[in-house]
Amino acid sequence: MKIDISDFRVREGDQVDLKKWPTDVKPICSSSEHYKKHLTHHVEKLTALQRLHYASRQCAILLIFQAMDAAGKDGAIRHVMSGVNPQGCEVFSFKQPSATELLHDFLWRTSCDLPERGRIGIFNRSYYEEVLITRVHPKILHNEGLPEALLLESAIWKDRYRSIVDFERHLHANGTLILKFYLHLSKDEQRKRFIARIDDPEKNWKFSMADVKERGYWNAYMTAFEECLTATTTTHVPWYVVPADDKDNARLIVSQVVVDTMEALNMRYPRTTPEREHELKMIRKELLA
Amino acid sequence: MKIDISDFRVREGDQVDLKKWPTDVKPICSSSEHYKKHLTHHVEKLTALQRLHYASRQCAILLIFQAMDAAGKDGAIRHVMSGVNPQGCEVFSFKQPSATELLHDFLWRTSCDLPERGRIGIFNRSYYEEVLITRVHPKILHNEGLPEALLLESAIWKDRYRSIVDFERHLHANGTLILKFYLHLSKDEQRKRFIARIDDPEKNWKFSMADVKERGYWNAYMTAFEECLTATTTTHVPWYVVPADDKDNARLIVSQVVVDTMEALNMRYPRTTPEREHELKMIRKELLA
Repeated sequence: MKIDISDFRVREGDQVDLKKWPTDVKPICSSSEHYKKHLTHHVEKLTALQRLHYASRQCAILLIFQAMDAAGKDGAIRHVMSGVNPQGCEVFSFKQPSATELLHDFLWRTSCDLPERGRIGIFNRSYYEEVLITRVHPKILHNEGLPEALLLESAIWKDRYRSIVDFERHLHANGTLILKFYLHLSKDEQRKRFIARIDDPEKNWKFSMADVKERGYWNAYMTAFEECLTATTTTHVPWYVVPADDKDNARLIVSQVVVDTMEALNMRYPRTTPEREHELKMIRKELLA
Repeated sequence: MKIDISDFRVREGDQVDLKKWPTDVKPICSSSEHYKKHLTHHVEKLTALQRLHYASRQCAILLIFQAMDAAGKDGAIRHVMSGVNPQGCEVFSFKQPSATELLHDFLWRTSCDLPERGRIGIFNRSYYEEVLITRVHPKILHNEGLPEALLLESAIWKDRYRSIVDFERHLHANGTLILKFYLHLSKDEQRKRFIARIDDPEKNWKFSMADVKERGYWNAYMTAFEECLTATTTTHVPWYVVPADDKDNARLIVSQVVVDTMEALNMRYPRTTPEREHELKMIRKELLA
């Protein structure tokens, strides 16, 4: 019952119409127990792969999560990555940029947090916000303090897509493997989750009036996501559109993508040369004596 | 007696042959006194422009200096930028990369130090080292810990040029003005300066045996510079080849390039709206009462 991750991958050249991408698929697991077993299996695999990744330092891995509010980004990160040694894995959440960050180019604040080889970096939101929320609310763009000459809106989004594609191409060519996840939630499922956040005192903190206000821009967001996914998915740095109405399914799919991609790297522990092997044997002897 | 900076600019599409670019031009100033007056004039202009730059925050300015040893990078930076308020200007010298830096892509360590809008950042050496010293000594490349698959040498330099051009295009499009200076020194003038460093006890610290060793790779360096300048000069982010055998001339040319470029920005102090003007008047009245 292996998940075929290619079902969810956006191909270079695809014209993305999100209405045609499912927000739900039929349950991958038949019971809650079955689900837990399946996810645990993925997490165990991931834990072993990450140890190997850390030792081989062959590449860096960057996971990017983007989605509408309440689509389950935090939960997916928590459940999928919980088995991984935090020494080899770091999560960065990008909220509203600081004044200093706004005085730099829009890739700057995230680029300082890029993972080094041997590590996994997770971006909970990312530089993609600069072609999503900023696109839906041009006021944000105009408050970024950019000189007016750079603000010809007809060109700026294409130019930002190009900057992103160039940047990711460079990172890929220099040893960073990037996986991008769009958690695809239906508007109705978001409504249900907002209500649950209001009803459950332990979830109240996650809800803000701003979330409901953003919901009013749903269609504009879908258009921004469609154009963004179309322009920035590439063969080497693809987007995955993950059906997110069912949290269990979403987590299984995300973890399957990460496991499959890491397995395909064919990593191995650094090889020991015959000289080194001999040296190690000699040291062992001395330590025993 | 204005210096025409276009004489020293490398045009996009130019095939650079450094033998055809002068390492010296006839003295721009007729006496030491005349030179001092001229440079002081440039520095004063620069100081005023930088105040305006800081207030207008219209763009960021990045100056990159690359050259052979003893070409006068430090001296040029010191003499040209000495009048500028350090709050608006920072110099970063890039020596051998650290272990952490080597675990990232080759643009990473410099990108964290990029100047914000309103400031001038100076890179004394830069990411260009990765296509210069690293190219002349492929051993350095092989010690960077990159996976072997990325090390197909025939492709790597072209790929790095492309990364650099893409990166600088992005920075330019997002409000960073970049000026790149190659201080062009003759091999014989370097020999004289090395001897001076050995003879003068106060300059001894600047000399190391490694410098002489690098001198042995002169031709390989010239080829690396030629290919680098050819591949990475663009209309928006040009290289300037500055004749460097005469330090006075070099400093005058560098400062002229910076002054001319900043003047062409047509910066202005942030405008005061009529509302704000009214508000300021009211506050003034209150403060007086």
